[in-house]
Amino acid sequence: MNALKDLTFLKTSQISTDPEILKDYGKDWTRYYTPNPIAVLFPQTTKEVQEIIFWARKNKIALVPSGGRTGLSGGAVAQNGEVVISLSKMNQILKFDELNLSISCQAGVITEALQDFATQNGYHFPVDFAARGSSQIGGNIATNVGGLNVIHYGLMRDWVLSLTVVTGQGEILNLNNGLIKNNTGYDLRQLFIGSEGTLGIITEATLKITPPPQKASIVILGLQDYMHIQNIFVQFRRHLTLFAFEMFTDKALDYVLKSHTHLKPPFQKNYPYYILAEVETANEHEEQELLAVYEDCFQSGFILDGVISQSQQQAEDFWKYRDFISESLSPMTPYKNDISVKISDIPNFIREIDIVLKKEYPHYEVVWFGHIGDGNLHINILKPPSLRTQEFVISCQRVDEILFSTIQKFQGSISAEHGVGLSKKPFLHFTKSKQEIQIMKEIKKVFDPDNILNPGKIFD
Amino acid sequence: MNALKDLTFLKTSQISTDPEILKDYGKDWTRYYTPNPIAVLFPQTTKEVQEIIFWARKNKIALVPSGGRTGLSGGAVAQNGEVVISLSKMNQILKFDELNLSISCQAGVITEALQDFATQNGYHFPVDFAARGSSQIGGNIATNVGGLNVIHYGLMRDWVLSLTVVTGQGEILNLNNGLIKNNTGYDLRQLFIGSEGTLGIITEATLKITPPPQKASIVILGLQDYMHIQNIFVQFRRHLTLFAFEMFTDKALDYVLKSHTHLKPPFQKNYPYYILAEVETANEHEEQELLAVYEDCFQSGFILDGVISQSQQQAEDFWKYRDFISESLSPMTPYKNDISVKISDIPNFIREIDIVLKKEYPHYEVVWFGHIGDGNLHINILKPPSLRTQEFVISCQRVDEILFSTIQKFQGSISAEHGVGLSKKPFLHFTKSKQEIQIMKEIKKVFDPDNILNPGKIFD
Repeated sequence: MNALKDLTFLKTSQISTDPEILKDYGKDWTRYYTPNPIAVLFPQTTKEVQEIIFWARKNKIALVPSGGRTGLSGGAVAQNGEVVISLSKMNQILKFDELNLSISCQAGVITEALQDFATQNGYHFPVDFAARGSSQIGGNIATNVGGLNVIHYGLMRDWVLSLTVVTGQGEILNLNNGLIKNNTGYDLRQLFIGSEGTLGIITEATLKITPPPQKASIVILGLQDYMHIQNIFVQFRRHLTLFAFEMFTDKALDYVLKSHTHLKPPFQKNYPYYILAEVETANEHEEQELLAVYEDCFQSGFILDGVISQSQQQAEDFWKYRDFISESLSPMTPYKNDISVKISDIPNFIREIDIVLKKEYPHYEVVWFGHIGDGNLHINILKPPSLRTQEFVISCQRVDEILFSTIQKFQGSISAEHGVGLSKKPFLHFTKSKQEIQIMKEIKKVFDPDNILNPGKIFD
Repeated sequence: MNALKDLTFLKTSQISTDPEILKDYGKDWTRYYTPNPIAVLFPQTTKEVQEIIFWARKNKIALVPSGGRTGLSGGAVAQNGEVVISLSKMNQILKFDELNLSISCQAGVITEALQDFATQNGYHFPVDFAARGSSQIGGNIATNVGGLNVIHYGLMRDWVLSLTVVTGQGEILNLNNGLIKNNTGYDLRQLFIGSEGTLGIITEATLKITPPPQKASIVILGLQDYMHIQNIFVQFRRHLTLFAFEMFTDKALDYVLKSHTHLKPPFQKNYPYYILAEVETANEHEEQELLAVYEDCFQSGFILDGVISQSQQQAEDFWKYRDFISESLSPMTPYKNDISVKISDIPNFIREIDIVLKKEYPHYEVVWFGHIGDGNLHINILKPPSLRTQEFVISCQRVDEILFSTIQKFQGSISAEHGVGLSKKPFLHFTKSKQEIQIMKEIKKVFDPDNILNPGKIFD
C-alpha cells in the first residue's frame, strides 16, 4: 500500500505488515471475525498518534485503535483492510502522586502492571477483571470496564481523573488535568469513556487510586428460591461493607466441580442457587455485624445453608466456585450474553427468560451467573452435544432476538460490560432509542468528521 | 408578546407576565444582573416541556431553564427578553426504590426535600451544600454541584443514575433507565450533567442513595505553616474514613468570632491556619485510629494544637467555625472566586497568588478558605471600607485576570463548583482550550440547533 511510504515520521520497526502480526492484531477475544488489517503501527508518543491521524485523514484510511484486544464484542477487530494503531509501545507509568491519589500512565500499560504499581506504592487500583494480565488501560477506558468489584468501587468511569486524547480531527485534548472539581462546560472526558475508539485515541490517562482494602471474608450461601436473593442483598448491603455479591446456579457449580475434582462442594446438600459475598471484616465489630446479618437471613428462611471463610486461603478457595465457571463451561461451547437490568427486575426477568427458553429451546441447557449486586447477568446457553456448532450459533441468534426483546421490555442493557463493537451493533436499538443513536452519530461527526476512527463499530 | 397566545396547551395559571414574578425568576444569587424576561412558564409534565420547546423553536424564542436560582455564575439569569421555563411545579418525588438504592423524582424537587425523604426511608442522599433549602434537583444536576462532602461522596455526577431530558430539538430522551452497568455507546447522560441548561431541559432524574453515615467526630487543628496541611491530609486520608477536610485562615476565624460573639475560639492561642476534619468514629476501633493519627501529626510537628468533638452538640458547634465564614464576610462585600487546582499544587498556588495580590493590591484583605481536601479554594477579596463598591468591583476584575492566569499556569479550574454561566464566560479559555470550546459549541448544535436553550451561557 503506497500510503504506508508516507509514514516517514515512524521508524520502520514501528510499522508491521508481517502476516502473523496482522492476524494477531486484527482480532480480539471474540474470535468470530476474520482479521484482515493491512498494517499495524506502533506509535510511541501522543505526537506520533497525531501524525498518524493526519496521515489517515489525508489518505482516507480507516484506523482501528488497539489495546490488549481482550474485548468480547469485536470493538478492536480489523476485518476490512484497516490500519491497526497499537498502543502497546506506549506502556510507561509516568507518575505516582500520593497527594492527588493518582497514577498517570500511557494508554498501553497493562492493567495488572498498574494494579501492581499501585500496590507497591501502598495503594490500590480497584478495577479488576479476568483479562487483567493482557488488557490495557486505554482499552479499559474505551470500553468502560466493570468487573468483580463494581458494587463497591464502581466502573472504570469512576476512576478516570483525566485523559489525553487525539481526536479524529487530529487535535490533542488534555481533558480535566487531574482536577477533582472542574465545572467549566461539558465534561468531554466522559464522552471518551466507553466510546470504543470511535471519537479519538486515548494516549494517556490519570487514574485515581485508593487506600488498600482491609481484611475481607467470603460468605457462600445456599438458597432454595431466587426470590430471596433480593432480601439477602438488601440486608447485606444495608449493614455491611460489600465488595462483591455474586450469584450462580447449581448447574454452574456442577460444571465447576466436575472439571475441578480437587474442589470440594461448599455444602453436603445441593441448592438451586448460590450467593458468594465478599464482606469487609477488618475488625471484631465488622465480624460480629456479619454474623448478625447472616443469622438474621437464616432465621428469616432466606438461606438454607451457609459458610464464612476462616482464613485467607479459604477465602481464595471459595472464590474458585465463581472464578472457574467460565472456564468450566468453555468445552460446552457456550453462547454468551452479558446483559443488565435493574436489580429489582432480576427475578421477573429471569423467570420470563426461563419460560421462553424452555418453550423455544427445550434441549438447550441454560446456565446463569453474574454480578447480581449490580444487575449484571451472564447468560450462557450450552450447545447440545448432538448439534453442530454452526447450527447452534445460528439458532442462538434467534435466541438473541427473544432475549433482547425481553431486555427492551425491562428497559435493560444488551451489553452491561462488554460494549457494542461489531457483535452487538445489530441490537443497539433494543437499549438505545432512535433519537439517541442519531445524536451519537452526530457527536461522532464532531470528533471524527472523516469517519477514520474505528468505522463501523457501535453503529454504521 | 403575540407568541404567548399560542401557548394554548398551558393553563393561564402556568403563564406569568407579572412584573414581580419576572423580576424574581429572571435572576439568581449573583445579583449582578438586571432581570428582564418577558414571561415565566410553569410546565407540569415532560410533555408540556416538550410542547414549550416546539413553540420556542417555531417562534425563535430563547428559553432560560430555571430551578431554585441559587447559582453563583448567572447560569439562570434572564436579562435579554428570554422566556423563563421554571421547573418548580414539577416537584413530585416519584419513587423510593430500596433494591436499586435509588429515588426517582421530578426536576423541581428541592434538594432538602429529597434529602429528608431519603432519611425518612432509612437512607441518605449525600450531596449537600448551603443552598439546600431552595436549590432544585434539576439545577443541581445542570451545574454538577459539589458541596461539603465531595471528599467522601463525590459530586452530583456520581449520584445520577438516569435522566429524562427534553433536548433543544424537542426530543424526549430517557437516559440510562436506572441501570448500574450499561456499555452501549456514548453516555449522553454525562453530557447533561453540568451543561447549565444549554443542551436540554432535565425534567426527571433517578438518583442514587446510600445507607446513612455512621457516627462521626469533628477535629479542629491549629497550624503554623500551611505546608503541613498536605502532610496532615495524607495521614488522615490514609488511615481514617474522612467525610470533610476543610481549611480556613485566622482572618476567616476572626470574622466568624467577631460576628458571632457567643462562639468561643477553638484554642487559647491563635494560629495562622486551621483544619476542620470530619472523621467516621462509628466504633472504638475507629476512635482509636483517629487518636493515633492525631498523636502522630502532633509528634511530627504538623499541628500545634487540636481538639476532637466529644458529643454531637460539640460536633455541630465546631462546624460553625467553617459554616459561618461566608455569612460573616458578607458585610465586607467580598469579591468571591471559586477555583480549584490539584491538591499537590495548593501550597505553591497560594504562595504565588498571595505574593501577586500583596504587590498589586496591598490594601486589600484576602481571606482564604475552602474544601481543601478536593483542591477547591474560595478566595475572598474584601472591600477596603474607603473604596466605593463600583470602583472595587472594577479593580477586582483586574484581579480576576491575575488570578486566572495563575490558575492557567497550574492547569487549574476557574470554576470548581459554580459553573460558567455568564460571569465566568469571559474567562473560560483560562481552563479550556480553544479546541475544547469549539467542540463544546458543535455539541451544543447537535442538541440545540436553533440555539433556543439558555443562549449566551457558558460560551457565545
